[in-house]
Amino acid sequence: MDSTSPIIYVVEPYGGSIRRHNSALPLIYWDDAAVTRGDGIFETLLIRDGHPANLQRHLDRFRASARLMELPEPIVEDWITATREAVSEWSQRSDEDATCVWTYTRGRASTGRPSAWLTLTPVSDTVLRQRRKGVKVMTSPRGFSIDTSLPGVEEATEGGSPRPAPWLTVGAKTLNYAANMAALRYARSRGLDDVIYLDPGTGRVLEGATSTVITVRAGGKLRTPVSGGDILPGTTQAALFDYAETHGWRCKAKEMTVERLLDADSVWLVSSVRVAVRVTEIDGVKLPAPDNEDEVRELINAALGAE
Amino acid sequence: MDSTSPIIYVVEPYGGSIRRHNSALPLIYWDDAAVTRGDGIFETLLIRDGHPANLQRHLDRFRASARLMELPEPIVEDWITATREAVSEWSQRSDEDATCVWTYTRGRASTGRPSAWLTLTPVSDTVLRQRRKGVKVMTSPRGFSIDTSLPGVEEATEGGSPRPAPWLTVGAKTLNYAANMAALRYARSRGLDDVIYLDPGTGRVLEGATSTVITVRAGGKLRTPVSGGDILPGTTQAALFDYAETHGWRCKAKEMTVERLLDADSVWLVSSVRVAVRVTEIDGVKLPAPDNEDEVRELINAALGAE
Repeated sequence: MDSTSPIIYVVEPYGGSIRRHNSALPLIYWDDAAVTRGDGIFETLLIRDGHPANLQRHLDRFRASARLMELPEPIVEDWITATREAVSEWSQRSDEDATCVWTYTRGRASTGRPSAWLTLTPVSDTVLRQRRKGVKVMTSPRGFSIDTSLPGVEEATEGGSPRPAPWLTVGAKTLNYAANMAALRYARSRGLDDVIYLDPGTGRVLEGATSTVITVRAGGKLRTPVSGGDILPGTTQAALFDYAETHGWRCKAKEMTVERLLDADSVWLVSSVRVAVRVTEIDGVKLPAPDNEDEVRELINAALGAE
Repeated sequence: MDSTSPIIYVVEPYGGSIRRHNSALPLIYWDDAAVTRGDGIFETLLIRDGHPANLQRHLDRFRASARLMELPEPIVEDWITATREAVSEWSQRSDEDATCVWTYTRGRASTGRPSAWLTLTPVSDTVLRQRRKGVKVMTSPRGFSIDTSLPGVEEATEGGSPRPAPWLTVGAKTLNYAANMAALRYARSRGLDDVIYLDPGTGRVLEGATSTVITVRAGGKLRTPVSGGDILPGTTQAALFDYAETHGWRCKAKEMTVERLLDADSVWLVSSVRVAVRVTEIDGVKLPAPDNEDEVRELINAALGAE
């Protein structure tokens, strides 16, 4: 196995062995619900300096997603052990950042047992370039809207509804990303890098296709759209706000429009592996680099290393 | 390999070989977009009397889905060949109905080539029971609504938009069924069999979780909600309406409410493998069997065999 091949560990969902899987061989069976229905959840973690960054928030969201999807409670210790084994293997190869993805599916129809595994791969060149150069984005309605007036949705997105209901997968980080991928393909076909979703009725800013939107404003202010309902709570944004709040920044979740993005000092898309990429253009309008660009970047990196 | 194991054929997406896959071995790689993003499409076909039923409509919808998802045009001849090989193998085992699923995904990130395969399995006992006994359903809002006012949506659902756009996966039969599966789990936890989705704003009947809604009314009338936008066009419903129209029935797509379901002679969920299951209860209200129950069933079976 060459040194660039992905590191894969299979996790026994009910506890027990963790085994390394040869990435050159197929992994998933024909009747796994991940493949037949996109019926599973995932988390993507940054591996940096020999550690999974922001681990606790990822574990919390992973458990919340599993609960919303009525998957058996993940055995946290096993996920941590498997992650540390993979990271240890990675560290012998490289001291660069890596991407770790946990996947947990409803599993095979023929066995009724969930499937669970993690992969660890190098950070892609695209991500490295976007970290340096930023991203050009287009805004777009999402094409569908989530009905937040339904009973259960608010509790669901808080992760603690007592009674599961059909619409409770709202707020879970599921494998159903086909629409997001289509939006990104469309953006790329127009020479852009990413998409920021807007609510078509109100023009309210929602989130990036795979990231949380942040603005930085004069006076040390950080802002992000209010999560819940149709906005997945971001683990990187949460780490950033918690850390920044204790370092003199004033952080608040607040509804915002595209106009509020354009008159901010800077706009960022934050997510686990890209960490923070500055938005350099929105719908053709250039956003000049702010004076504190390096300071913001350092703040986010410090937040991820602070845990 | 025992005689109950699924029959799997892998289809080369760009043409070439069709090979049988041993179902006891894993099939899909860790980096297939079907697994990582639910990024793929599928069709489910009924195999009956040695033939795939309603083949042309499934091929048409499969191609339309591929176009909407910007997957390479499926090579229809290869799918037909693979299906016939699998069916021929099945016919040596059994003359019962079987379920054939075509899956076509964006494929492995590391190769950029789509993945494509079909599986052929016995019809499940649940389906056989539902065909005989009918289904008890609950109505539910879907939890999200598709914005049909967006440019592109109407053309997309007709399968022929000139310009792909982010929201164009509306109308494609993608692997993103996690919400539908959650709705079905919820229904089953309440002792029910299925869900009929309603538009929360208007109370308009949309579709079943995995089926099209049909009503039969006095005077030989068949009705179904208007497809497009937030209702996937049904291949079985289309076959039924085309056939019934030439056999003295009056068939029309028409908006309907739950009240219109309750005052119909009978209500059916139609889909490829279940074919037609009568709705025997909606939200606790019993629907008595109509006098023409057998006639309706024979009509649908004849429609599927008429191709």
